[in-house]
Amino acid sequence: MKLFISQEEIRQRQKSFIQKLEEEGIEAAILFDYVDIFYLTGFQFRPSERPIAFILDQHGDGHLFVPQLEKEHAEEYAVVKKVYDYPEYPGKVHPMNYLADILKTLFFETLVVGYDALSYSSTKGYKGPAISDLLAMPFAKSIKGYVEQLRYIKSPGEIELIKESVRWGNLAHTLLVKYTEVGKREIEVEGRASLEATQCMFDTLGPHYKPFGSPAVHTFYRGQIGPHSAFPHSQNQNATFERGYNVVSQSASFVWGYTSELERTMFIQDINKEQETYFHIMLGAQEVAFRTIRPGIPASKVEEEVQRYFKEKGVTELTRHHTGHNIGMLNHEAPFFDLGDHTILQPGMVFSVEPGLYVKGLGAFRHSDTILITKDGMELLTYYPRDLQSLIIG
Amino acid sequence: MKLFISQEEIRQRQKSFIQKLEEEGIEAAILFDYVDIFYLTGFQFRPSERPIAFILDQHGDGHLFVPQLEKEHAEEYAVVKKVYDYPEYPGKVHPMNYLADILKTLFFETLVVGYDALSYSSTKGYKGPAISDLLAMPFAKSIKGYVEQLRYIKSPGEIELIKESVRWGNLAHTLLVKYTEVGKREIEVEGRASLEATQCMFDTLGPHYKPFGSPAVHTFYRGQIGPHSAFPHSQNQNATFERGYNVVSQSASFVWGYTSELERTMFIQDINKEQETYFHIMLGAQEVAFRTIRPGIPASKVEEEVQRYFKEKGVTELTRHHTGHNIGMLNHEAPFFDLGDHTILQPGMVFSVEPGLYVKGLGAFRHSDTILITKDGMELLTYYPRDLQSLIIG
Repeated sequence: MKLFISQEEIRQRQKSFIQKLEEEGIEAAILFDYVDIFYLTGFQFRPSERPIAFILDQHGDGHLFVPQLEKEHAEEYAVVKKVYDYPEYPGKVHPMNYLADILKTLFFETLVVGYDALSYSSTKGYKGPAISDLLAMPFAKSIKGYVEQLRYIKSPGEIELIKESVRWGNLAHTLLVKYTEVGKREIEVEGRASLEATQCMFDTLGPHYKPFGSPAVHTFYRGQIGPHSAFPHSQNQNATFERGYNVVSQSASFVWGYTSELERTMFIQDINKEQETYFHIMLGAQEVAFRTIRPGIPASKVEEEVQRYFKEKGVTELTRHHTGHNIGMLNHEAPFFDLGDHTILQPGMVFSVEPGLYVKGLGAFRHSDTILITKDGMELLTYYPRDLQSLIIG
Repeated sequence: MKLFISQEEIRQRQKSFIQKLEEEGIEAAILFDYVDIFYLTGFQFRPSERPIAFILDQHGDGHLFVPQLEKEHAEEYAVVKKVYDYPEYPGKVHPMNYLADILKTLFFETLVVGYDALSYSSTKGYKGPAISDLLAMPFAKSIKGYVEQLRYIKSPGEIELIKESVRWGNLAHTLLVKYTEVGKREIEVEGRASLEATQCMFDTLGPHYKPFGSPAVHTFYRGQIGPHSAFPHSQNQNATFERGYNVVSQSASFVWGYTSELERTMFIQDINKEQETYFHIMLGAQEVAFRTIRPGIPASKVEEEVQRYFKEKGVTELTRHHTGHNIGMLNHEAPFFDLGDHTILQPGMVFSVEPGLYVKGLGAFRHSDTILITKDGMELLTYYPRDLQSLIIG
């Protein structure tokens, strides 16, 4: 079983990136985005206060710029020609000065250079100058979003990893449902289900499996329990399950950095008429999206159809967000099923489909499924039951 | 037991921020940093592709700008006068246009305005214009780092939360050691210890406890097992414990958004002479730091003393990073015990102390302890044993 992206595919990604740059007349590039760096080099790292950058020189060779802390780690894993390192951040000499010197030796002052940002940024205590303050970059232009766009369409290898991720999210979800009962608290149910699914995943996949994402498997309610679920991005509330509550779950796993999304609206033992009504409207909205999604249409079309349906049902004021987002190396990625996103859907794109309704005092109604856009429509990758009968717990 | 920061303290933070702005002649401000927004408003949220901003108007009133998705959530939890919302990102009208209109009505075109960034940034598929592209900001100046600096010194309430966090990190660590044995894989040991510690924490603290950080409790080796531990920022390697390995652990918990750090270098059953030598040098480096740390000296002084000690011992080439970082709402924050950081240490600052040695083919030697700077020195907040005899497992 191949549970990783091959070095050959990483090299192919670099080639696609170079081709895109060439089309724009760009001769060299520098990137700070850590997800894009993982994508282009296969080097997965924990972003911190210490800047890391990917440099593509004019010969098409990739280089990494890392703190000494990551030197050997990058040399072991990154598909690049050379790893440059600096002592430490902030250091006696600021890392950006080392970087500027390297860029000068690679002729960044005379080449047409693409950059995703002019400086490193981090919430973790980083401050520093822009590289354009430290060297002349008369021919520099922003290429922000170039690699992200390469990431829109998943390769067969990436799709396999996402499908593998779906499988273990499904197990975690099954266990979550099994352990959820009146009087228990969210954390104990979530923790037990996550742990058992994690162990089963590692036991099944064996020693070559690397999550490259954290946690490897998780399943939780994230505070979406009873009326508090009406906050779509709620946080753990340390809540206790009560009869008649609606709850919304979220389950996922990571396989070599790739993830997926499975969410279900469920009911504890009992369901009232109002809950049933909203549940079926929500389910209908997902069906509208599924019927609409196909290659060749703009992403916005999916949102338009879902919004039209919600309007017909008279529940527009209960919606709080768009229908879905791309997913792969991050849990949310562009493009979006959103009125303002006109990206044309293409085979190989992977999205969440999760139209939701939020009713104050009652709670949330949202399933999320992960889908793959195919040659002539879409394939549902998540397979946990979506119907009401299967989602009444206990 | 008080397991949260009071609304009164949140208001006091806003007052301190306003005072700092007044000293600089700044009349209003806008902030995009999510940690600073949590600090100033008490509203904890999951950053996504959707921009969120904190606005301070000229009367000293705070406002939040959030997606519709977070409107009710922010209204429930944020200590602000008003919550403004926009439909969605990217949306038919880009969120930054809504924000620009609000800022205009709050006179941001004529006031002296402070900003931490001119645009929202996110790895999760966000693109958009700078606010300065959408409204005139002739008197705008960067105040990046102002709130971070307020966060340097912890209040008594914050210190209590960090101490509570230490307690549960310690339990998790104790269980990690209890379950670690030859032939087991890292993930099963970590998962079981984390789960049991989490459940005990929730049971002990009761229903009012909110983690506001994820996971609530964790303890893991993060791939720092055997020779692979020589990569200081390793990732989970799905490794199996073997006799004679050195391992490095990491344990922490979140209490209302506050965290701490506990790491230990340990040995599986057996230790050889080389391991023993490096262990004692590392332990000595921590002692050097502890003896040096006191208010009134620059942070760099601590690093200088540790480096001097390592040089005396002839192991400089085995070091890979500075001695420590501030910690509180994020696991790494400024200032740093680093040659280039001359911030003067003050009572109430909380740091990690973690000088480390990395030996290729053998592994890592690093403890990390969380310390509080006191009136006349420091207090060790983490209390797990640090001596060799206590750290031989099995």
